Amino acid sequence: MRKERDKVKVIPLGGLGEIGKNMTAIEYKDDIIVIDCGLKFPDDEMLGVDLVIPDITYLKKNIERVRGIFLTHGHEDHIGALPYVLKEINIPVYGTKLTLGIVETKLKEHRILSKVKLNCVKPKDIIRLQNMSVEFIRTSHSIADSTALAIHTPLGVILHTGDFKIDYTPIDGSLIDLARFAELGKKGVLLMLADSTNVERPGYTMSERTVGETFQKFFATAKNRIIVATFASNIHRIQQIITAAEKYNRKVAISGRSMENIMDVAMKLGYININKNTLINIDSINKYPNNKLVIITTGSQGEPMSALSRMAASEHKKVNIIPGDRIIISASAIPGNEKLISKVINQLFKKGAEVIYEALADVHVSGHACQEELKLIHTLVKPRFFMPVHGEYRHLKQHADLAMKLGLPANHVIIGDNGDVIELTRNSIKRAGTVISGQVFVDGLGVGDVGNIVLRDRRHLSQDGILTVVVTIEKESASVIAGPDIISRGFVYVRESEDLMEEAKELVRGVLKECEEKHITEWANIKSNVKEVLRSFLYERTKRRPMILPIIMEI
Amino acid sequence: MRKERDKVKVIPLGGLGEIGKNMTAIEYKDDIIVIDCGLKFPDDEMLGVDLVIPDITYLKKNIERVRGIFLTHGHEDHIGALPYVLKEINIPVYGTKLTLGIVETKLKEHRILSKVKLNCVKPKDIIRLQNMSVEFIRTSHSIADSTALAIHTPLGVILHTGDFKIDYTPIDGSLIDLARFAELGKKGVLLMLADSTNVERPGYTMSERTVGETFQKFFATAKNRIIVATFASNIHRIQQIITAAEKYNRKVAISGRSMENIMDVAMKLGYININKNTLINIDSINKYPNNKLVIITTGSQGEPMSALSRMAASEHKKVNIIPGDRIIISASAIPGNEKLISKVINQLFKKGAEVIYEALADVHVSGHACQEELKLIHTLVKPRFFMPVHGEYRHLKQHADLAMKLGLPANHVIIGDNGDVIELTRNSIKRAGTVISGQVFVDGLGVGDVGNIVLRDRRHLSQDGILTVVVTIEKESASVIAGPDIISRGFVYVRESEDLMEEAKELVRGVLKECEEKHITEWANIKSNVKEVLRSFLYERTKRRPMILPIIMEI
Repeated sequence: MRKERDKVKVIPLGGLGEIGKNMTAIEYKDDIIVIDCGLKFPDDEMLGVDLVIPDITYLKKNIERVRGIFLTHGHEDHIGALPYVLKEINIPVYGTKLTLGIVETKLKEHRILSKVKLNCVKPKDIIRLQNMSVEFIRTSHSIADSTALAIHTPLGVILHTGDFKIDYTPIDGSLIDLARFAELGKKGVLLMLADSTNVERPGYTMSERTVGETFQKFFATAKNRIIVATFASNIHRIQQIITAAEKYNRKVAISGRSMENIMDVAMKLGYININKNTLINIDSINKYPNNKLVIITTGSQGEPMSALSRMAASEHKKVNIIPGDRIIISASAIPGNEKLISKVINQLFKKGAEVIYEALADVHVSGHACQEELKLIHTLVKPRFFMPVHGEYRHLKQHADLAMKLGLPANHVIIGDNGDVIELTRNSIKRAGTVISGQVFVDGLGVGDVGNIVLRDRRHLSQDGILTVVVTIEKESASVIAGPDIISRGFVYVRESEDLMEEAKELVRGVLKECEEKHITEWANIKSNVKEVLRSFLYERTKRRPMILPIIMEI
Repeated sequence: MRKERDKVKVIPLGGLGEIGKNMTAIEYKDDIIVIDCGLKFPDDEMLGVDLVIPDITYLKKNIERVRGIFLTHGHEDHIGALPYVLKEINIPVYGTKLTLGIVETKLKEHRILSKVKLNCVKPKDIIRLQNMSVEFIRTSHSIADSTALAIHTPLGVILHTGDFKIDYTPIDGSLIDLARFAELGKKGVLLMLADSTNVERPGYTMSERTVGETFQKFFATAKNRIIVATFASNIHRIQQIITAAEKYNRKVAISGRSMENIMDVAMKLGYININKNTLINIDSINKYPNNKLVIITTGSQGEPMSALSRMAASEHKKVNIIPGDRIIISASAIPGNEKLISKVINQLFKKGAEVIYEALADVHVSGHACQEELKLIHTLVKPRFFMPVHGEYRHLKQHADLAMKLGLPANHVIIGDNGDVIELTRNSIKRAGTVISGQVFVDGLGVGDVGNIVLRDRRHLSQDGILTVVVTIEKESASVIAGPDIISRGFVYVRESEDLMEEAKELVRGVLKECEEKHITEWANIKSNVKEVLRSFLYERTKRRPMILPIIMEI
């Protein structure tokens, strides 16, 4: 007989209070399992940072209990941190075929594929661990082979929806397994963790199939080349582009590295249905008339180095935009990318292309459940406790409100934060402490070596630049041997500011002289005096605050 | 008799291919008039820049012919550059009462009010110049006292709509003068320049009055304090908040400098209808029960230093957010501000406030005409020629397409760019050259002293920081006396990178020794050798490219 003090712990390590870097640990006795291992793209203030991944200190400390990472699907915000995390903790990874296909490509690039144990599962599979078992349940989402996870523990089932929507007419015919959600609900689900991304939107998310109808319409009337930009991972979207291309006798070429990668994986694993003559190499597009061509490309977010951005800026080696090109941007802006996308659209229009994008036509649907779909899942699953996941605080809050409107008592709903230890019994849910969590910055080869001090300096430098003051001083006498020299970067246009710099030097000379006279020989004191005098002088004259870096060389 | 070679020139100096810094010169013979004088807020890549204003080189060169600046309305993107431009060219300014009221506040802050000649006009007024006259025509927009301008020239009328929408139920009862648009159209308009901001949106922009209905609904059910954030300049929006407050017996307090300024001006000039006991000082809000209070505040764009952001971050001196506060963000995100607004919303929710924003309720309407309104204006005015204004290229292109769909031949429609000289006769419109134009950056007290080199350096610094290498060298022998010292900022966390820095120093020592041995005494050569060696070493080791600044002190 289990004692009532048996507890399951749910520890979100990422994905709460943010969109991205999803990672949740669930532990019962000797088993810890990890759901997803995602990355996040840096915010504007994280200058120079390439990626953000979760802090996995807690998992490292408890490594002997961690049984595996269970992936819900193959999006970057669910798998993108794997190469970094697996270098630190090499544990088995479980996921569906396409998910692992994408993971393999990543691990190959990071040269660690051979060291990692990847376990391919199918929906309905159950992985049995010592104290828990993990069941994969098919869902719909904007990438194929997406799943929810039911974690069976002795205290009850914890159901994690992953990212999902309810699509009754999915492209591959594989329906979300609503019956299993209902069955689990009937038997009793202890806790549900559910996707909150679209909780602010009323109604339903449209079926992916509606985008195919838009493609058909625009393909039917196109007289010239068609270029479609979309998310590389959206296999179903790509399938619909290919289907429309074949219907209108067009060849398909692929542009952009991630698009090429995903097409390789998807075709190899049988996720793309394409005639063997349809696909042509991007190098041979000039052999075909424009009205027989479709180019599928990356760059739907206006990413500056992406294929579409390079086309728009006349920097693409293989594709020149020509007047009459019909360009469909089949995506919506991820918040923060609006201006980048706008820039690309403007450039494409200027080249005489016809550009079709979200403001003008139904060229995109979301991959996340809106309010009515969330209500359906809540109603089928009827969990005893609920914790919203995948969202900024505003989304979590509104998802919590939605659950309460559907009947859950307030003390059965918890809004967690990354690092919280959420303790579950059969009859209660509560926050019972915290573990180390947070964000680790990846910058170039460095993982975690860029921290708040470095970022603060970059922000300072980015605003008003830097002013370096160098002086060589004779150690004993503290008398100036050479300098002061002042070099600035990113502060003012130097040629037009010679007077300002000359005055600044004069001020520094004054400070140094005073220090010498007063026998101040502590370099730190001299430096701080120089800094202070320059700071107020420059602010008064320019209302700017460059970083001031005094350097004293002693001989 | 006028000769057919008579020409009118239209020279856009800002506002084409961009949203903001609107300014257009129109010239005929000896007269040049300038329509609007706006600023733009910097893009993300304009690091450290405060404001962007138009380049007025052309006006300065032709100053003896410039008769005045005619303002369509009082928004920043139409008047914000005035303080800077008037310091360079002191010419008369014409505008309606509220517009000039706002301008006065600005000029006072810049201490140039006494030097400037402001001419207050009313709608229907006509200002007669030697060869042209300028007629003000009332329009609707998201600020009161907005106007279009009809420039009467011997060749015909040029109609500039300014920013506008068509509101049949405006808050102040002052309708857009559609009859005058129709009358001018019937007599014949040579060229129309019209607002393109909302050309991508089908249908009509809703009346400002609909927002008032939303306020009434949320005020009627509020049990605690109400805080409404909106654009300071939207007098009608503020009026509707006040009207709702009075209906539900609430006092009104104002927070945020620009909101206080605009309230002063609007009340002084009679644009706000408020009972004398309604308005209270923000310092005395604690004297009233929460359910008797409304606070109107700045910060609807999530601007980091705004009043609402400070409230959200617990940094506001007068207002602490308390659970139960009902906060209405009565605005939509200006592109680029999405993440800032989202951050504020999250913070407010976390404090237990109820936050109502655009995704959740109809708390905002646009100030710009949608497609059906544009069609109405085009149909009434029936211009012979058309040039879209106020928009990025995508907007201008679609507005041009709309005009052609309504019947204008393609060679009667022109998409211009800033600096183009658009030449008009009775029968033709064409691009006939360009003048100097562009963007001038305002950073602190500097106007134009931050250029592309400074920005390039700031961008470089912001990405990977800086590494300064200093060495003191004996001039004659080129032998090293002190150093090399290496100091970095924004590159790596120094304490964890001591080995890297030591290796870097060793490399620099090697370069210096080699230079000494090879008798390379040109400092520029030594510097470039040091730079090159460090650059490739650091990139190989970190995949980062900090700015490298070698400094040689000679004694």
